[in-house]
Amino acid sequence: MTPPFQLIAETAGGGRLGRLALPHQTVETPVFMPVGTQGTVKAVAHDVLESLGAEIILGNTYHLYLRPGHESIRRMGGLHKFMSWPRALLSDSGGFQVFSLNALRKVTDDGVRFRSHLDGSSHFFTPEHSVDVQIALGADICMAFDECTEYPADRTRAQESLRLTMAWARRSLEHFCAHRDEVIWRDEREGRTQSLFGIVQGGMYRDLRRACAERLVEMDFDGYAIGGLSVGETRELTLKMIAEVLPLLPKDKPRYVMGVGYPDEIEQYARMGVDMMDCVLPTRAARHGLLFTSEGRLNIKNKQYAEDQNPPDPACDCPVCRRYSRAYLRHLMQAGEPLSGTLNTIHNLAYYLAIMHRVRRSLEAGSSADVGRLTPNT
Amino acid sequence: MTPPFQLIAETAGGGRLGRLALPHQTVETPVFMPVGTQGTVKAVAHDVLESLGAEIILGNTYHLYLRPGHESIRRMGGLHKFMSWPRALLSDSGGFQVFSLNALRKVTDDGVRFRSHLDGSSHFFTPEHSVDVQIALGADICMAFDECTEYPADRTRAQESLRLTMAWARRSLEHFCAHRDEVIWRDEREGRTQSLFGIVQGGMYRDLRRACAERLVEMDFDGYAIGGLSVGETRELTLKMIAEVLPLLPKDKPRYVMGVGYPDEIEQYARMGVDMMDCVLPTRAARHGLLFTSEGRLNIKNKQYAEDQNPPDPACDCPVCRRYSRAYLRHLMQAGEPLSGTLNTIHNLAYYLAIMHRVRRSLEAGSSADVGRLTPNT
Repeated sequence: MTPPFQLIAETAGGGRLGRLALPHQTVETPVFMPVGTQGTVKAVAHDVLESLGAEIILGNTYHLYLRPGHESIRRMGGLHKFMSWPRALLSDSGGFQVFSLNALRKVTDDGVRFRSHLDGSSHFFTPEHSVDVQIALGADICMAFDECTEYPADRTRAQESLRLTMAWARRSLEHFCAHRDEVIWRDEREGRTQSLFGIVQGGMYRDLRRACAERLVEMDFDGYAIGGLSVGETRELTLKMIAEVLPLLPKDKPRYVMGVGYPDEIEQYARMGVDMMDCVLPTRAARHGLLFTSEGRLNIKNKQYAEDQNPPDPACDCPVCRRYSRAYLRHLMQAGEPLSGTLNTIHNLAYYLAIMHRVRRSLEAGSSADVGRLTPNT
Repeated sequence: MTPPFQLIAETAGGGRLGRLALPHQTVETPVFMPVGTQGTVKAVAHDVLESLGAEIILGNTYHLYLRPGHESIRRMGGLHKFMSWPRALLSDSGGFQVFSLNALRKVTDDGVRFRSHLDGSSHFFTPEHSVDVQIALGADICMAFDECTEYPADRTRAQESLRLTMAWARRSLEHFCAHRDEVIWRDEREGRTQSLFGIVQGGMYRDLRRACAERLVEMDFDGYAIGGLSVGETRELTLKMIAEVLPLLPKDKPRYVMGVGYPDEIEQYARMGVDMMDCVLPTRAARHGLLFTSEGRLNIKNKQYAEDQNPPDPACDCPVCRRYSRAYLRHLMQAGEPLSGTLNTIHNLAYYLAIMHRVRRSLEAGSSADVGRLTPNT
């Protein structure tokens, strides 16, 4: 039942080099996971993602459940086959989107009633249903159904939200354990099946975060996520919550911080011992013309780039920086050309993936400033 | 001054296999040229175009003049450098867009006053100015400034329009001959420079078309285009006009039919002796979900493809057909994903380019049904 997570090295600062052997791909950690909400990382073809070294990407349960529908995806062999992505996939629980995209949702202990943002139709998600949908999708990693506590939330509200998340975590796990072997590709993968991660919530209250983490660890998930961060709080607070939770998590399970972050953040968290991260930032910012570079953020729309023939990032070796100039990328954006989003996204993803690559090599070589004696753990 | 067009073989039906040695690329003809209006073939990255075998693409003078501006492009080394496209380029004269995108244009013998579709600013294009802009862009092939006669047009109107086109052709050629050596990349290309093609107009009147062709040939252009077709007339009429003009054109110059056509049309015209064609159809139709396949046209939006796991065209070897299913392409379209336009366009362009490849091989092998004795002409 445990996903084969192998911890290869650990630094004094807590940074971990690992290897996560998922049914569809062995993933080197720490890893950044591009977001492919509707079964596509927006504007980027799969062969490009592969050439950039993306080993695992996300799909959103909420979106895929509504369109094209999880039953349809199962009939076509699961999400990997449907979207022709042979490497690893992670599906979220749908909870975050139900809460963020539905003003009229109604939450009870049993689950959440919400209206589709596509056609207004009424739907009801329970922990069991979220797990059923995720088994139908067949991602390598599934997430427990949780409530992402809003920010700010007072202590009473955060406690009540956490109570729901804990009850739903237990129900998610029970239902998952009873049905995890039903995933459609199990026989093709020598009986290997999906993993389920629990999600630590608790708002911005350290004791609630601790209590949540401890109880989830008792339940024995395949991995642990820290959710409800990057929701409007200061970065200092984000860091504090991550630092509070990480030491409570078992060393032999992967640790995933959801929805982060800026380039320096993902590097910082990776060096603290976070194994997995995802964020729409590099892809969404790209479509708005914001490029992340070794020289800082670059808004490609700016007039100053109109005749700038330098690559977006002179220090970057990605296919976009090797071929195209800032002037051309600015022109594509100004002209509203679809290639604009594609090229900007390729660069930003390459930049994010290169950060993780560099961090992994640094953890491996022990060359990082904060690396102590490597602790083999295999 | 003559572009080195080499006629390799000719069939009894008139089909010609040729080789057009342009400064940036030797192009095998008959060739289909994808349209890259704003300096980009919409939604497709250049490395993909190269891998599909595109040897020459179009840029639109009207669009590039307005944005980012031809002077800006010249300062950056010309259109090839600006857009990082090392292969051949052809620029149109801007005339067609001035006429099709401007309801309020004002035509005089001198030129056309029009308003920018972007910001309403007023501009004046003359044959000389069109040539200046095209020399600044620096495409391998430029087009004479013409008036694309609307359809239907009565004989008086077609005659008057043709009078303008003829006068403008002469002025375009004179101005071009005086300035063709000013193209910015001339020194890098061992003194080789741009070519200018004349455009045969004359509405749907055979005698006007003949008169136009004969006078343009006297002027001695580097190549000849047939314009003003595919503007609403029947396909029979299109064919009649092409058949009327082709025999009048010199054998040792390339022949270009502008703005055609459907897959069977481009094959038919190529087998009649047309060397070059361009059309927005494969790219524009793709973005609307219309795929051209060996089994006919396929509207990928149709519900019948919702769970169809076949490739778009089972007989096609393009990167899209090798990897993705109809169901996935339909999903991308339904979900409004940008990858939809990209993948659909790649398939359609691959399909068009494969037709031309097949026709060339057929002309070469003399295996076409209408191939007579090959007439070497080198």
